[in-house]
Amino acid sequence: MPVETIDRLAQELEAEARRVSADVDSFFAKLLTPTGDSRERLFEAMRHAAIGGGKRLRPLLTVAASKLFAIDRMRALRVGCAIEAIHVYSLIHDDLPCMDDADLRRGKATVHKAFGEAEAVLAGDSLHALAFEILAHPATHEDPWVRSDLVLELGRAAGPNGMAGGQMMDLVAEGQTLDLPAITRLQQLKTGALIEYAVEAACIMNKMPPDARTSYRGYARNIGLAFQIADDLIDHSGDEAAAGKPTRKDAHAGKATFVSLLGEERARQQAGFLVNQAIEHLSGHGSEADLLRAIARFAIERDH
Amino acid sequence: MPVETIDRLAQELEAEARRVSADVDSFFAKLLTPTGDSRERLFEAMRHAAIGGGKRLRPLLTVAASKLFAIDRMRALRVGCAIEAIHVYSLIHDDLPCMDDADLRRGKATVHKAFGEAEAVLAGDSLHALAFEILAHPATHEDPWVRSDLVLELGRAAGPNGMAGGQMMDLVAEGQTLDLPAITRLQQLKTGALIEYAVEAACIMNKMPPDARTSYRGYARNIGLAFQIADDLIDHSGDEAAAGKPTRKDAHAGKATFVSLLGEERARQQAGFLVNQAIEHLSGHGSEADLLRAIARFAIERDH
Repeated sequence: MPVETIDRLAQELEAEARRVSADVDSFFAKLLTPTGDSRERLFEAMRHAAIGGGKRLRPLLTVAASKLFAIDRMRALRVGCAIEAIHVYSLIHDDLPCMDDADLRRGKATVHKAFGEAEAVLAGDSLHALAFEILAHPATHEDPWVRSDLVLELGRAAGPNGMAGGQMMDLVAEGQTLDLPAITRLQQLKTGALIEYAVEAACIMNKMPPDARTSYRGYARNIGLAFQIADDLIDHSGDEAAAGKPTRKDAHAGKATFVSLLGEERARQQAGFLVNQAIEHLSGHGSEADLLRAIARFAIERDH
Repeated sequence: MPVETIDRLAQELEAEARRVSADVDSFFAKLLTPTGDSRERLFEAMRHAAIGGGKRLRPLLTVAASKLFAIDRMRALRVGCAIEAIHVYSLIHDDLPCMDDADLRRGKATVHKAFGEAEAVLAGDSLHALAFEILAHPATHEDPWVRSDLVLELGRAAGPNGMAGGQMMDLVAEGQTLDLPAITRLQQLKTGALIEYAVEAACIMNKMPPDARTSYRGYARNIGLAFQIADDLIDHSGDEAAAGKPTRKDAHAGKATFVSLLGEERARQQAGFLVNQAIEHLSGHGSEADLLRAIARFAIERDH
């Protein structure tokens, strides 16, 4: 690909990522307006976690994948915000003292540090329920089959056979030495399932049956792993400014990562291989897939 | 009502409650089969909490309300199990050390006592996601509008404008002196919203528009408060065998309850008044509403 094209795609991606971040912030600001009663502290905690932070990778993926099928941007954004609500709830619970016991997230105090542990449990639970309420609302899609399918697959991606199951695997992994297939499976559940859903959701809005979604899920699975390797590389490098949180926690906890298993150089190569594979899955598409291609490239470049 | 009729209804209610309990247990046993991987501890924790305990009031209400409209029992049960999954997740999180710090629930060790705190957080989160997955599955109802509506209203009932919001109010209430309207509002969110949903779900399966559901929601709102007063009376009496958990916690925490505000006798009268009001809401129905009427009566008699 000519350098000018790469530069143009990088700029377009940056502009779209900025727009999506602003749209997600304003969506949550409208959803979580002050209550004027004693639940206010709960809403404040949710706003603290949901507004103004993070890369918004998942909503960006849903918006980018929706371009493949010319799906209305507002709909894609609502679905993206539902996914982000799940992601944010999982971060809040993951940061709790009984889990990762983290003080910092996205460069600011974690919810339990700023508001208390009980508030963090409830803020996470509240965002979890809101995610499904958002999807099932007629404003998300006029076809109830689509809404129902969006809920079904998000439930699967978030629950014990998806994200929550992966978090359990991660808990059990502490102090064990996992091999590459075990780490891959763990990450596919813990972070991959939700990333896969972010792309699959566009297919669902496009009313594609499950077997027609395979290549799009393949794209998402590949970049999900590439992102995880990039995260491991950042953690390994110890660059806390890039990470927005303390680094080298995995090494200290004795946890195996892609980097500890493969070494830095081979991990970087593997990420590059996964990105190429991801882009290969989009070969049936023209320029409407450029944003998804740019996201894939960005997956391994963000730690430079 | 003649004494023989009351006796017959009590027997029918008891038999139906036993059937529903058995059906809920077998539903969760099938849903939560061993995984054969490192998530097994998570599934064990979910089975510990979800199988073999509790009065199953919410699924019983959905099954009883479904009789009003001759809705298929298997469908009512699936919806009832989704609601019970939400109820059980809320109990698991509510029992955490940072919340109520409870050691006993339904007569056995709480999840965090038996499995650990992180496991309790994840088991609650997993049941939460499963609830929506169950509702959105085509086996729950063939009409996607119904499924989508079931999800929308459960999201509302469980989230920050329902149960989770009520739990926040309850947190804030500690050490404060709430008055009767404030306690009523707190309980309507904390426990009432889910009980109301358990009845409304039958209306949704019957494809009734929201304004046609008013009297059924009124029935549920009344018995929800009556049940809460009954709970407060059990807690006040200090009968730990009836409660299945330590009692008088509210008094020790300095929390206002219906009993502390009204006194035992007036609280009992108020519960009786609410039950009569609940039954009044069913006046348009014949014998198909007998089970709902029996549940209402049972609401104030179970602490005798």
